[in-house]
Amino acid sequence: MKNFTSVHDISNPEILVQEALELKKNLYGFSDLGKNKTLGLVFLNPSLRTRMSSQKAGMNLGMQVQVINAGQDAWNWEFAENAVMNGTTVEHIKDAAKVLSEYCDVIGLRCFPGLKDRDEDYNEFVLNSFIKYATVPVISLESATRHPLQSFADLITIRENWNKPQKPNVVLSWAPHIKALPQAVGNSFAEWMNAADVDFCIANPEGYDLSKEFTGAAKVYHNQEEALQNADFVYFKNWSSFENYGALPEVKGDWLLGEDFLKTNPETKFMHCLPVRRNLEMSDAVLDSSNSLIYQQANNRTLSAQLIIKKILENSL
Amino acid sequence: MKNFTSVHDISNPEILVQEALELKKNLYGFSDLGKNKTLGLVFLNPSLRTRMSSQKAGMNLGMQVQVINAGQDAWNWEFAENAVMNGTTVEHIKDAAKVLSEYCDVIGLRCFPGLKDRDEDYNEFVLNSFIKYATVPVISLESATRHPLQSFADLITIRENWNKPQKPNVVLSWAPHIKALPQAVGNSFAEWMNAADVDFCIANPEGYDLSKEFTGAAKVYHNQEEALQNADFVYFKNWSSFENYGALPEVKGDWLLGEDFLKTNPETKFMHCLPVRRNLEMSDAVLDSSNSLIYQQANNRTLSAQLIIKKILENSL
Amino acid sequence: MKNFTSVHDISNPEILVQEALELKKNLYGFSDLGKNKTLGLVFLNPSLRTRMSSQKAGMNLGMQVQVINAGQDAWNWEFAENAVMNGTTVEHIKDAAKVLSEYCDVIGLRCFPGLKDRDEDYNEFVLNSFIKYATVPVISLESATRHPLQSFADLITIRENWNKPQKPNVVLSWAPHIKALPQAVGNSFAEWMNAADVDFCIANPEGYDLSKEFTGAAKVYHNQEEALQNADFVYFKNWSSFENYGALPEVKGDWLLGEDFLKTNPETKFMHCLPVRRNLEMSDAVLDSSNSLIYQQANNRTLSAQLIIKKILENSL
Repeated sequence: MKNFTSVHDISNPEILVQEALELKKNLYGFSDLGKNKTLGLVFLNPSLRTRMSSQKAGMNLGMQVQVINAGQDAWNWEFAENAVMNGTTVEHIKDAAKVLSEYCDVIGLRCFPGLKDRDEDYNEFVLNSFIKYATVPVISLESATRHPLQSFADLITIRENWNKPQKPNVVLSWAPHIKALPQAVGNSFAEWMNAADVDFCIANPEGYDLSKEFTGAAKVYHNQEEALQNADFVYFKNWSSFENYGALPEVKGDWLLGEDFLKTNPETKFMHCLPVRRNLEMSDAVLDSSNSLIYQQANNRTLSAQLIIKKILENSL
Repeated sequence: MKNFTSVHDISNPEILVQEALELKKNLYGFSDLGKNKTLGLVFLNPSLRTRMSSQKAGMNLGMQVQVINAGQDAWNWEFAENAVMNGTTVEHIKDAAKVLSEYCDVIGLRCFPGLKDRDEDYNEFVLNSFIKYATVPVISLESATRHPLQSFADLITIRENWNKPQKPNVVLSWAPHIKALPQAVGNSFAEWMNAADVDFCIANPEGYDLSKEFTGAAKVYHNQEEALQNADFVYFKNWSSFENYGALPEVKGDWLLGEDFLKTNPETKFMHCLPVRRNLEMSDAVLDSSNSLIYQQANNRTLSAQLIIKKILENSL
Repeated sequence: MKNFTSVHDISNPEILVQEALELKKNLYGFSDLGKNKTLGLVFLNPSLRTRMSSQKAGMNLGMQVQVINAGQDAWNWEFAENAVMNGTTVEHIKDAAKVLSEYCDVIGLRCFPGLKDRDEDYNEFVLNSFIKYATVPVISLESATRHPLQSFADLITIRENWNKPQKPNVVLSWAPHIKALPQAVGNSFAEWMNAADVDFCIANPEGYDLSKEFTGAAKVYHNQEEALQNADFVYFKNWSSFENYGALPEVKGDWLLGEDFLKTNPETKFMHCLPVRRNLEMSDAVLDSSNSLIYQQANNRTLSAQLIIKKILENSL
């Protein structure tokens, strides 16, 4: 049994992309593989793209798909070992994970971070507790620190838009927002780019450096203009501070690219995982330009999920 | 690509009814048509009948069906062009429509009117904004001013209950309620009846005249008894004022038919789109009489949805 | 047409278990039986296990499955005959049941008791009102006084874990809780055990005796230790008072079994319908022992639902 929660669960992201592009030519050719198998999608947090694309991926493979929206459809979990459950929790994660495993052949789990206790979030307390007790493969549908199906879809999209012999220059750029958001998409994208065959760097304001655990050797610029100078792909995403965990330190300068950048960089492609707050994170000019890849990324979410589930069903992950 | 949002999207309602009655003989004969196609049903407002019948229609055609309950499962849309999204909206309708189009081959959308701004409602602001950006066919599951799948099911039901050579006499009668309801069902029924091969008139209290855009040449009576004199079919439905938009002007007289009417009009059939508030909109006597067609109408919702989706998949709408 | 709401709807529970064990060898062998049939699952109350297992059961039989979460997806029912519906109820149960019957071939309904009016609950007011008007078979997914699919899964589990010639000694033991819970699981288990080929008794504190209608001739102990002396299977479940309806009379003594019991009763098997509050209803030691059957019970929920639906589709119930 094999779980999929990060780039570390696969051997080579570039080979995985090639497998995905092969699958794309024959999306409905494996509908016997999932026959009489159940995919359970458990959402502890809201979801649109991930829910739709994962559901579609499972159905394309012939699986029965069941969606469980916790909170609304279900329940409040206890995580503490030996807890005397005489309070507000109604089911221990041990029992939830084991019971879901009785009904499902593969389980997808979405569990956002609380953004309050960094150790708890970065130890992936919820995801790892669930995996500890589940008896079937578990796929992360975005956890406290990573969003691997998104990052995989992003890498597929980059490969579909790059046919030059040299490595593409990929930049992850922090983008403005009004709320404190997790670092998961940024962390995960960094991790995948570091493992992929690309030149990768990051641009973010001071105080917003991501954890070295994810950014590794990637150069971090605190000046967007400098970082984007030779960018073939710019991936925009907001995140709150890792260092001063969950905080929103004051940001100097303007981090919103407009039409000027388009004129001086006519070849640069633009990415975002969506939903995007227009004219706050990215301008209309950039989002609606012909170099925007956002809808192609969304489309590739089905493909990335479908390949991972396919490989789990084939025991080839 | 063709959308279905009103009777104007089809050439002849009576021919469509004949096609529906043909399909009814072989409901499960087209399950290959929707194979590997996804039907997305997006509900910005609650639904029971429409959700169940549309889901069933899609499944009967072999489609994968995904239901999205916005608000609960999803999100708060921005509609303004060029908006700086630093407030409560989390996704622009442009992106929502385009992303949903990446996952779905056909999208059904339910969007009720706000009943506050008549121009906005009667311009079908939400539905048309969605259609503007969607890249796949869109079906109205009831919009601000129309409920076309309901009206089509209603016409099918009328045809199934009429075998005389002359045209049936069909009356749309306003019915009492305690809330301010949209005009959508009334508008839409009027529009379909005007396009169908029936004699059609309307009965409603003064102050409750529907928009001429929908009622056209149909005679409007302010006296229920007079309008119902020769009725073969009476369709009951409440709506709030169009003129004094969304208001509930005082109503004179009794608009609730009882057992007396049944005795003097033993052939008249009774219709309602449901849900119905018993003994407020329609009496138990009328609803439970053998001339009540309400459950047959509900049943035909599957058929009307299935034919429209079938024609969209066949590119024959 | 046949409904399934209690053990009284089947002729012999032990034969039904044998049929279920046969079906278990060939779970996916009847996927043509439900082809083009719709299973509607209506939840007036939350559900996880029942929803997942019933949905899976229907899909295993090739059915289209539609889940309706009332309240959230739907509506507030009127139950009174002749009611003038000018208040908060929006649809009469008569119309809800009849309309759902237009879309579904089999309907599962979950409706918990209010725990306030014992007569209303024990007359199964909601379930019976629904059945009165439904025109297709209705399956209880737990009603005010019974949970028959659970009890059937429990009996299957007992049979799978018993291969001695003599009857097993089965004890239903009340367990502590912090809330006032229905008697449904206890009632239903008692009813099934009384009809099965087992020796059966009950242990509960004074003031917590279940209704004689369900416990019948089973001996009721007010001392847990005494009741459990020769237990082969102990089924734990909390319930509130039947006599002083819905109350929580003070309980004397300790009703939580620990490690000591395991040592002195190494052969006894332990059961619970889940979710379980650990170390309140049952200790970790008991729940996690190799004699705990809780996950097997959960797994058998699919089987019990699938056999009942299969028999309804075959008209063999």
